[in-house]
Amino acid sequence: MGFHADMVEIGDQAVKASRTLASLTSRKKDAILEAMVGELEGRRDELKVANAEDLKRAEKEGLSSAMLDRLELTDARMDAMIKGIQDVVSLKDPVGTTISSWIRPNGLEIQKVRVPIGVIGMIYESRPNVTVDAATLCFKTSNAVILRGGSESIHSNKALAKVLQEGGKKKGLPEGTIQLVETTDREAVKELVHLVGKVDVIIPRGGEGLIRMITKMSHIPVIKHYQGNCHTYVDESADLEMALEISENAKCQRPGVCNAMETLLVHEKVAAEFLPTLVQRLRIHGVELRGDEIACTIDSSINEAKEDDWYTEYLDLILAIRIVPDVKAAIEHVNQYGSHHSDAIVASSEGAQKMFTQEVDSSTVYVNASTRFTDGAEFGLGAEIGISTDKLHARGPMGLEELTTYKYIVLGKGQIKE
Amino acid sequence: MGFHADMVEIGDQAVKASRTLASLTSRKKDAILEAMVGELEGRRDELKVANAEDLKRAEKEGLSSAMLDRLELTDARMDAMIKGIQDVVSLKDPVGTTISSWIRPNGLEIQKVRVPIGVIGMIYESRPNVTVDAATLCFKTSNAVILRGGSESIHSNKALAKVLQEGGKKKGLPEGTIQLVETTDREAVKELVHLVGKVDVIIPRGGEGLIRMITKMSHIPVIKHYQGNCHTYVDESADLEMALEISENAKCQRPGVCNAMETLLVHEKVAAEFLPTLVQRLRIHGVELRGDEIACTIDSSINEAKEDDWYTEYLDLILAIRIVPDVKAAIEHVNQYGSHHSDAIVASSEGAQKMFTQEVDSSTVYVNASTRFTDGAEFGLGAEIGISTDKLHARGPMGLEELTTYKYIVLGKGQIKE
Repeated sequence: MGFHADMVEIGDQAVKASRTLASLTSRKKDAILEAMVGELEGRRDELKVANAEDLKRAEKEGLSSAMLDRLELTDARMDAMIKGIQDVVSLKDPVGTTISSWIRPNGLEIQKVRVPIGVIGMIYESRPNVTVDAATLCFKTSNAVILRGGSESIHSNKALAKVLQEGGKKKGLPEGTIQLVETTDREAVKELVHLVGKVDVIIPRGGEGLIRMITKMSHIPVIKHYQGNCHTYVDESADLEMALEISENAKCQRPGVCNAMETLLVHEKVAAEFLPTLVQRLRIHGVELRGDEIACTIDSSINEAKEDDWYTEYLDLILAIRIVPDVKAAIEHVNQYGSHHSDAIVASSEGAQKMFTQEVDSSTVYVNASTRFTDGAEFGLGAEIGISTDKLHARGPMGLEELTTYKYIVLGKGQIKE
Repeated sequence: MGFHADMVEIGDQAVKASRTLASLTSRKKDAILEAMVGELEGRRDELKVANAEDLKRAEKEGLSSAMLDRLELTDARMDAMIKGIQDVVSLKDPVGTTISSWIRPNGLEIQKVRVPIGVIGMIYESRPNVTVDAATLCFKTSNAVILRGGSESIHSNKALAKVLQEGGKKKGLPEGTIQLVETTDREAVKELVHLVGKVDVIIPRGGEGLIRMITKMSHIPVIKHYQGNCHTYVDESADLEMALEISENAKCQRPGVCNAMETLLVHEKVAAEFLPTLVQRLRIHGVELRGDEIACTIDSSINEAKEDDWYTEYLDLILAIRIVPDVKAAIEHVNQYGSHHSDAIVASSEGAQKMFTQEVDSSTVYVNASTRFTDGAEFGLGAEIGISTDKLHARGPMGLEELTTYKYIVLGKGQIKE
């Protein structure tokens, strides 16, 4: 394919920067991040002006109020961005740490050492804060980043990238470390995901459609964040009061996120006791319930679920309910219909707990806790660049370590192969 | 795209098997592997008959003697296969081990646990021993595998897969764990790499053309093993006797493999002293030398190198030679022209060593040793399924650990998100 000269140039710049970044000390990187904080603080007005341009265009184009809200750079949001960078400063830099080392019988010392991935391509939708999050997390791990945000937030993103670049430069940020694709041309995305040998990984953040499109198109490995069709299974051995609390929390505390529960599985032996109370509790939140035949018999206010419901990530106050004969059937349901994201068992039986955690093929499996905890901050990773639903390289919340790879350094004294 | 029913069936069988495999104990898996060994021992004649069919067809089709040699299942090779399985038995099973665990302030206990990847698609060329290596390594790590070997070895592969399946079955190998694609139709490869949601990773083994073709075609992550364009850099601080030994070994001990040296970089201050002796040594092995202008001036028997030479993986008794002004220039050359596989520095200066190991962006960087050691067995990994030139998930020699991923198991006492 033919490339725009500027995209190849961006790729080359990023590769060049990544070579320099590999040997920056953590102290130096933190000083640069602090300089970015100072710059953001000092140039809030400039950012608001740029953001106003995006908002004006968005209003003119009739974007929904939810979209407009996502776009807006309020003072509170700028505070949060700045706090985010300060958090990144306080995190331990994984680059350069030795994962393991050993000595071979021939005296060779093998060190497995954590190193940056190199160049990361971030493709994301409307929210401008991703520009700052991604840039600073990638930089903290000595990666160069190429940012491609949504066209709706192009002015905000350009202003944010400029402020980060100019702030960082005061303390020696290598040129080309943080680059934003300034054209909103869709062709540019295609070119970005074809920069084989320049870009090492693509991380898309946004709706499932965007991610699928990019995955199909890309010749570069993509770390994907598909949907979270999460389950809670209430075993016959469950503390039903606990099950009630967990189910309510997993469904209602914030229904629009990927770690919210979408389907509840209930052991047949406790369904008649558990369901009616649960239904009452969920009704208060206005949850629509869609159950299988048995569930509908137990509580007539439950609507009938269709096969499609088991596959659906509602991201809304809707819950599918299925009654299962045992933990094995629950596991089979989760593995067949789920999205391998976050699934929970509520049980006091250790046998059931063990079987569920071992056999459910999901990135996070909970015992007696809400699925809502799948998140970099809740896990104590400090920050996250996304939640991977892939199995390779990174699975679940992706923090700083997942933005690194490793190399082997082998120290010899003249060894040659026999 | 339309799928042959049988490829979808193979994928479903593999997924089903992978669910069962996740909870097999190491002891059980080893007993199954031992049963495979017994079966291979007892059915050598049957394997030879099948292999003879492949050899007959290959001869008829006029395959080169090198290809015929690769195809042949001699007794020595069957011994090696059996020894290979016994080695796999003796390796520690990484599945189920806890990588790390910690407790959060809210009391949640987070365990990061090693688990199988799931279903692995192996696509390989002529050598039938890959059938046994891949099947047993994947099984030891509780992965189901779909094998797609070259058409030249189809009879041998079918016989080997059958023997492994039937041997394993005697001790309870789950059906669908080891499946061989029996059609040699090229369309089947395309279908295999489109089985999204069934196959978790594709590992191709073979020439670069095959790997590039599969990477472009696949909708499933591919772990790639491209070329090894490996360098040795002789610093001004090098022990030149050591540099001589290492260079000779890296180039001549086995020139046709990916970790052999292809380009030698020499610091200008030692070039006049080092090169003539090296040339003498390499001439004995019949190595053709292609150098830059300075190298040609130092030794008139060196031919002139072209720009292309720096990019070339000769896999032959040819060596490119370039004179560089310092370690920085050597690093730049390696990063620009190399393939990020294995590169060595010979130096006594710690500064030069550190700069080289830190800035060379390769999976394995050597100090004062031959590049020929990049290999699972030499690293002490016990066995390898390939050498990854990727940066994600696995880099360098891939042993058992690289055939696993992880999941988070989170243990609570009723925690809900505030």
